[in-house]
Amino acid sequence: MNIALDVMGGDHAPHEIVAGAILAARQFDVTISLVGRPDVIERELAKHPTHGLDLPLVPAFEVVEMSDKPAKAVRTKKDSSMVVACELVKEGKADALVTAGNTGGALAAGVLHFGRMQSILRPALIIPFPTTQGFCLILDVGANTDVKPEQLQQFAVMGSLYACRIMGVYNPSVRILSNGEEEGKGSQLVLEATALLERTPSIRFLGNIEARDVTSGVADVVVTDGFTGNVFMKGAEGVSKLLQRVLLDEITAGPISSIGGLLVRSALRRVARRLDDNEYGGAVLLGLSNLLIVGHGRSNANAIRHMIRIAKQSIDTRLVEEIQSGIGEVIDRYDKLVPIHR
Amino acid sequence: MNIALDVMGGDHAPHEIVAGAILAARQFDVTISLVGRPDVIERELAKHPTHGLDLPLVPAFEVVEMSDKPAKAVRTKKDSSMVVACELVKEGKADALVTAGNTGGALAAGVLHFGRMQSILRPALIIPFPTTQGFCLILDVGANTDVKPEQLQQFAVMGSLYACRIMGVYNPSVRILSNGEEEGKGSQLVLEATALLERTPSIRFLGNIEARDVTSGVADVVVTDGFTGNVFMKGAEGVSKLLQRVLLDEITAGPISSIGGLLVRSALRRVARRLDDNEYGGAVLLGLSNLLIVGHGRSNANAIRHMIRIAKQSIDTRLVEEIQSGIGEVIDRYDKLVPIHR
Repeated sequence: MNIALDVMGGDHAPHEIVAGAILAARQFDVTISLVGRPDVIERELAKHPTHGLDLPLVPAFEVVEMSDKPAKAVRTKKDSSMVVACELVKEGKADALVTAGNTGGALAAGVLHFGRMQSILRPALIIPFPTTQGFCLILDVGANTDVKPEQLQQFAVMGSLYACRIMGVYNPSVRILSNGEEEGKGSQLVLEATALLERTPSIRFLGNIEARDVTSGVADVVVTDGFTGNVFMKGAEGVSKLLQRVLLDEITAGPISSIGGLLVRSALRRVARRLDDNEYGGAVLLGLSNLLIVGHGRSNANAIRHMIRIAKQSIDTRLVEEIQSGIGEVIDRYDKLVPIHR
Repeated sequence: MNIALDVMGGDHAPHEIVAGAILAARQFDVTISLVGRPDVIERELAKHPTHGLDLPLVPAFEVVEMSDKPAKAVRTKKDSSMVVACELVKEGKADALVTAGNTGGALAAGVLHFGRMQSILRPALIIPFPTTQGFCLILDVGANTDVKPEQLQQFAVMGSLYACRIMGVYNPSVRILSNGEEEGKGSQLVLEATALLERTPSIRFLGNIEARDVTSGVADVVVTDGFTGNVFMKGAEGVSKLLQRVLLDEITAGPISSIGGLLVRSALRRVARRLDDNEYGGAVLLGLSNLLIVGHGRSNANAIRHMIRIAKQSIDTRLVEEIQSGIGEVIDRYDKLVPIHR
């Protein structure tokens, strides 16, 4: 098993990326191809003991910057670490691509180089989101802004398989994000998708979920379009930041400010760790012919390690093939249910 | 000035509603018509000193329950406090309706009884949302699930006027909620609405805003469709609850648990107060021919007081007329810009 890692992508590249690769290579016993500028990678490797680890270096001299226009960067920067890593996977020399670089660029590179699986209308970005019970999976969180009901149906099937195979959830429950939990509540898209989801026996569909209840753990998989999913996910980030800031203000303005501040700061750090996507391992773009794991720009070594863990598990459980056959089954058994050629 | 108050609506009706009315009548020197079951209202009034306050009682013997189907309840429960209060306003006997009852019911009653202002395509629900700088206004947060670009343009004009007249924001900035802050990012709806908003000189439109940045105070008014706005608002509620719960867990599991827990519990209460919609006064359904202020089901006396304050300010500043003329101006001066008869 060989995982291609974009060493130059991310706010903390290259040092945290290389450090994460070393952690993962040691823990999971996988080959990790380090793609990027050789001088940079060698300098980083020299900082760590790497004896016995399989970390081949694959040269790439350009970098897709966080500020680059995604599609353009991927087309023009052919010698970038992101594109070269993509090529490695496409040519069968590696089994998955892991990157914490420009998210839009990674999605564009994946679609362009890997291509969609047969019968898949659109790939979808899936992330784990914290709940009081642990986490749930949400997709799509940003790969597609405007979708059709049939696409949401496929997202549900892919999300359900991901929950089962990668997250180990038995018979995962699936709900669709809406503006009310009651039946019949929702946009036209949600109502039409609901009608399809109710007729999809390969998933355990339980109807609507309100945004307020996503964190309460009443669904294992939450399906939505990439626009709404993105608003939900980024809204949560903003609110969480606001709350932490206001809380620190309040505590440090209080009577026993210094002790309180200390206590809360330390608790907030633990909370952040518990809620952090680092623990779960980034987002996966489901529906492509090859595996693509995309991390947050601020990914540290631990986040990279988790992303590589997800990549390994996806390869071990043959996620791509599972999704292909899951979608095929929906199409075969419930013919005409998914009009794929529109 | 007479404000019609639905005494029977809300989780804490009737006691908190009546208590709020008394607070408001004393503070703002307004007449508040208490609409509901006379025996219930008289029992509540007897608990407070009300000398010198103008609190006429208007009998209504039914109640729109929180669990009722909104549209149906409003049509069938003609003697409910919500519908009777609506009628008072419609007949010109009161100047605004304030309710903390069934939100869907209140919206349905407003649209059905008050009707839309001339030229207004759809009414929109506006709420204040906390930011690090204070608050911003978001609309629509749930009145319309599927909207057209022209409707978003009208939301922007109404929101801008509301920010200016009621919240006292000078020359408010307006942004549209999208899945990225960059120009060109967004759903088809967002892109088309953006083109209209850029050609609307009566507002200060600054482009896209990401959900993550709503809390950072870079916009006074955030425009979105009711589906996305609802997901954003309720998602924030869920995340805030999760974070508070996890934080308390972490603190009370820590080494100095009891002191820490105490400190944090007290700070969280202050945070909740600071972030609470109670302080700002509920949601307003903009675009109707009469004023409708809708509170959260859990509104307490203080929330009711703030809702009545908003009602009074809206009457004082002639909000309905201002919006009517603002929308008229957009339509007159930029003819064909808003195709209102589609």
